[in-house]
Amino acid sequence: MSELRIIGITGIPEIMPGDNLAEILLQALLRQKIVLEEKDILVVKQKIVSKAEGRLVWLKDVIPSEFARYIAVQTGKDPRHIEVILRETKRIVKMDRGILIVETKQGFVCANAGVDESNIAGEEVVSLLPLDSDASAQRIRDYLIQKTGIPLAVIISDTFGRPWRQGLVDVALGVCGLKPIQNYKGQRDPYGHLLKATEIAVADELASAAELVLGKTTGVPAALIKGYPYVLENGKGTDLIRPAERDLFR
Amino acid sequence: MSELRIIGITGIPEIMPGDNLAEILLQALLRQKIVLEEKDILVVKQKIVSKAEGRLVWLKDVIPSEFARYIAVQTGKDPRHIEVILRETKRIVKMDRGILIVETKQGFVCANAGVDESNIAGEEVVSLLPLDSDASAQRIRDYLIQKTGIPLAVIISDTFGRPWRQGLVDVALGVCGLKPIQNYKGQRDPYGHLLKATEIAVADELASAAELVLGKTTGVPAALIKGYPYVLENGKGTDLIRPAERDLFR
Repeated sequence: MSELRIIGITGIPEIMPGDNLAEILLQALLRQKIVLEEKDILVVKQKIVSKAEGRLVWLKDVIPSEFARYIAVQTGKDPRHIEVILRETKRIVKMDRGILIVETKQGFVCANAGVDESNIAGEEVVSLLPLDSDASAQRIRDYLIQKTGIPLAVIISDTFGRPWRQGLVDVALGVCGLKPIQNYKGQRDPYGHLLKATEIAVADELASAAELVLGKTTGVPAALIKGYPYVLENGKGTDLIRPAERDLFR
Repeated sequence: MSELRIIGITGIPEIMPGDNLAEILLQALLRQKIVLEEKDILVVKQKIVSKAEGRLVWLKDVIPSEFARYIAVQTGKDPRHIEVILRETKRIVKMDRGILIVETKQGFVCANAGVDESNIAGEEVVSLLPLDSDASAQRIRDYLIQKTGIPLAVIISDTFGRPWRQGLVDVALGVCGLKPIQNYKGQRDPYGHLLKATEIAVADELASAAELVLGKTTGVPAALIKGYPYVLENGKGTDLIRPAERDLFR
């Protein structure tokens, strides 16, 4: 019987720049008496990764450009917040009705370049996405494997909107230890039909599944997923970014 | 400790038009000795719902229009398959590089109007999306509650692609018994900041979570989710469709 378990990791203290996040997560798992097993998947919210990596900007230190001030009027946001968004942006994909959809310097297409003010202590501080979420996932994974000897996978997740559908869902920004896309191409369904091109973004589904025990107001910024059968094979969160030439919507 | 369990429902036989799908699911749960509890969420793949509802089309009965034949050449698909897609289509959103993104008559924006040939017994048969997935979810829910007395929720799920990100994920087409969107607007994060507009598409996340125990080749077309705390309040899968006037990408 295939069964998945998703456990919220509680009791994680406020994360500060320079903190050893992997050690903090390990201690939280121990306190909660969660036994790590081979092929467990640790899903960690981008926000605490960004905090540990010092990816925070105090708005008092930001001088907005004329363009940022102009956009701020349209979006109803603080011009310094817009300035930070623009500094994280490679390309503006869509700018309309007060919404700013951009391609970040890391390649993600999302609203406001992932610059966010929620779930941070203090006023007028915003967080940026990690510089390299795959490297962040790998650092956490390497540390945990070194300390425990247990091969597991790590996903760094964030909450993104999407066209056509209302509401946001969590997706995987960074991945280490599993292939983010399960490719069924060339396999057969139970009726013998060849599956032509079914690629499932399992790392995004794992991130979404974890979000269900996290929430926005509960102070639970990580979860452990048990029982998902995957092949120990590497892949990156950036594999989940659709190449521009295969994307009809940017 | 918040913990979610997702259990694949096995041993579901081939579904035929006219079958009582709710009864078949109930029997499968009993055989597997899964105890239904209050607030369990049953996720059922669209494909078996469509089969039970007779939403199948035999291509031998389809005469493609001239437009369908012309499109077939560009997409490399059977012209009769294209004809079926066009008959399910309200509006073509994007048509490029052999890909057909449409708004279906039900309002979903997806590739090929959800017309699909995989996981169906027999050759040259395609399945259509249910006429009204919310009604399908409600019928299954009503039957199960009538038989068991246990208030649960039902989600009808399907696999959709999305712009910007590689790979497909499962989303909720039909919902009954829970609110598909969790709205945090007006709530405060643990730091006291007011959350401005965070709407989480939890029904889509539940569908994605269930997909992780389903897969495309395993013949497991339904899953039961236990431990997700939701308020027994109604909502519809169509609530997850972004209204055109709030959508920058169609």
